[in-house]
Order: sequence, then C-alpha cells, then structure tokens
Amino acid sequence: MKLLDGGRAPNPRRVRIFLAEKGIEVPLEPVDMGALDHKGERVTKANGLQRLPVLELADGTAIAESVAICRYFEELHPDPPLMGRDPLDCAMVEMWQRRMELHFLMAVALVFRHAHPAMAEWEKPQITELSESQRPKVIQFLSWFDKDLGDRPFAAGEHYSIADITATVALDFMKPARLAVPEELNNVNRYYAAMRDRSSYGA
Amino acid sequence: MKLLDGGRAPNPRRVRIFLAEKGIEVPLEPVDMGALDHKGERVTKANGLQRLPVLELADGTAIAESVAICRYFEELHPDPPLMGRDPLDCAMVEMWQRRMELHFLMAVALVFRHAHPAMAEWEKPQITELSESQRPKVIQFLSWFDKDLGDRPFAAGEHYSIADITATVALDFMKPARLAVPEELNNVNRYYAAMRDRSSYGA
Repeated sequence: MKLLDGGRAPNPRRVRIFLAEKGIEVPLEPVDMGALDHKGERVTKANGLQRLPVLELADGTAIAESVAICRYFEELHPDPPLMGRDPLDCAMVEMWQRRMELHFLMAVALVFRHAHPAMAEWEKPQITELSESQRPKVIQFLSWFDKDLGDRPFAAGEHYSIADITATVALDFMKPARLAVPEELNNVNRYYAAMRDRSSYGA
Repeated sequence: MKLLDGGRAPNPRRVRIFLAEKGIEVPLEPVDMGALDHKGERVTKANGLQRLPVLELADGTAIAESVAICRYFEELHPDPPLMGRDPLDCAMVEMWQRRMELHFLMAVALVFRHAHPAMAEWEKPQITELSESQRPKVIQFLSWFDKDLGDRPFAAGEHYSIADITATVALDFMKPARLAVPEELNNVNRYYAAMRDRSSYGA
C-alpha cells in the first residue's frame, strides 16, 4: 500500500492529518504538484481525473478522493472514530464535513486559484470576478459558523472528526488566498487555536 | 420526523430517490424554492445555510446536506446497502459519489445557475464566463466516464449506489442547462437509460 501524496496542497494534507489522528503509517510517494506531475502518466493511470492524493493498494486498486481514502481507513481502523459514532452522529459529522468542504474550503480555493498568478496553469480560464465574488462568502460563512459554534469544542459536537480536519485545512488555506479570520469571531479564533495545538497539525 | 423538501431541484431529488430505493417513507413538507421560501424563517431556523433538503427529527434535531441525510438512513436501515458493502466497496462508492458530485453535478449546476435568467436571484453575481467555462468540462468528464465505465452496470461497480443517484440527477439536470450527452458515448447512454428505467427514478 502507498499514498501518492501532493505535499502542502489542502487535499493531500487532509488525508495525512486523518492518518496521524488514527495513528496509522502509510508509505508516501511524493508527487511534485508544483511541476504539474499530477498530470503525468503515473498519477493519470491511478486516477484519470489527475487529482491527488490517491491510495494504491497492494493489488494495484487505486482509491482517489481524500474523503474516500479516509472512509477506507475509518472502516478498517474504527478507533478513534473520526466519521461518527452512531447513526445521528455519523449524519452530523457528514453534514459538517460537507459544510466545511462545500461552503468554506471550496470558496477559499476559488479565491486562491482564480487570482494567484501561480495558478494560471491550473485554472483555465482564471476568472478574477469569481475569485472576488467568493471573498465575502468566506467571511459570511465564518461569521455564521462563529454563532453556530458557540462553546462547542468541535464542529460536529463533542468529538473531534473529519469535519475539523477539513475546517483546519481551509483555515490554513486562507493565508495564501490573502484572507484572514476577523478578530471579532472569538469562537472561530478559539477553535482554530485549538486545532493548531493538536499533534496531527504538522502532518 | 419530516423532510423539508425542495421539489424538482437536484439535491431534494437525490434524497427522495435514495428513500425510494430503500423503501422508506418519510412525510414531506414542501418548500417552494421558486418563491425563495428556502430563505425564509422556517428553513433558516432548521439550516442556517438556507439549503434544502433538511431532515427534522421528532426532537427537533435538524440534519442538512443531502448526503448526510442519506448517511443517517443508511446507518438506520442498512438494506439494501447504497453506500458500500465492505471497507473497499465503501471507499469506491464514496469515491464515485464525490466524482459525480464535484466534477459532474457541480459543473452542470454552474452552467445552469450562472447563465439562466431565473437564477439571477440565486447567484449573485451571475458570471457568464464561469457558466461557459464549465460546458466543455461537463463533456470532458462524461467522455472520461464513458471509457472508465465500459461494461460495468453501475458507477462504483456491480451494485447500484448513491453514486448512481448523484449521476442520474446530474444527467437529468443537463437538460435545463442546455447540455446533452454526446450520442457517441455509448456506455454513458446505455447507463443513463438503465437509470431512467428504475422505479425510483420518478421519486
């Protein structure tokens, strides 16, 4: 088994943090996304959509999509649970994972990819208006999340989950997108500090 | 328990098809998305992100996000399994569900929402260039899927799954987006015909 890894990009990092939280070690095969090696023959054969990370099993089976790789390990190694503990908790984790991904991480990614000169080869066409339109949406989402979060320790409730991994990666990704968490969002700032304190954060 | 439903929009339909495949009946509370009622007090209280569908449990707990609602029912009523049968199958279903959602349904939705006059109140700003940029991406995705699909009956393998529900809804959504499956994509056309033949299709 090996993980075709893409370094600091948000999706590869999600899987590495997930594995660190589970205490699972998987051999990494680094792919240089800066050199667009994820569009090369090696990755294309494993994932025709040319995205990273990809988990390759011993028999050559390839699992693409970060959350699908996480699901595989969750099923094989249920402890600690990172995708829910009972039917309702599984649903709440899924809900928050999706909120963090679809309404937050994706918006931050659009801000970055449709404005940054280094992304010109990745996003064709780059649409400046799209980047600009997402900036206020990121802040709106965080303002809403701040109210909803309140005193909860984690996005989906009392337990750390994959939703917090997606949130952490999205919060970090705000920096290269030149976005910042507004100072007055006390709950989000407290939450983000707690996420950065976890030992998995450096994975 | 009741399902705040949004009629013909793709996400409400995903959940209704899922429930039909499971043979589960849940009382629906219709919300008129055409009248923007999903931005009204009733839905906002259940889901601050103002999206449908939302499942309300007897104690008032609200589960938003289509796939999270499906996950809840999958955990409570495992048969027939629509989200995988063993660790690897769960991962493959998750992978294909995400491919169908992120690289297909979402691209079709962008084509529609950033071009159709009726969507002017939904997408602010509407970005015509974004709509146009996604048209070829939808066709590229389907061309790739056609090759990958080959003779398989279903997206994730030998069993019908939630990935096929997302694909079905995305294929249907191409019509209002003024997109069509190219005639030469024989596998996709065969697959789409089989999906339309299922009794759950009308849900």
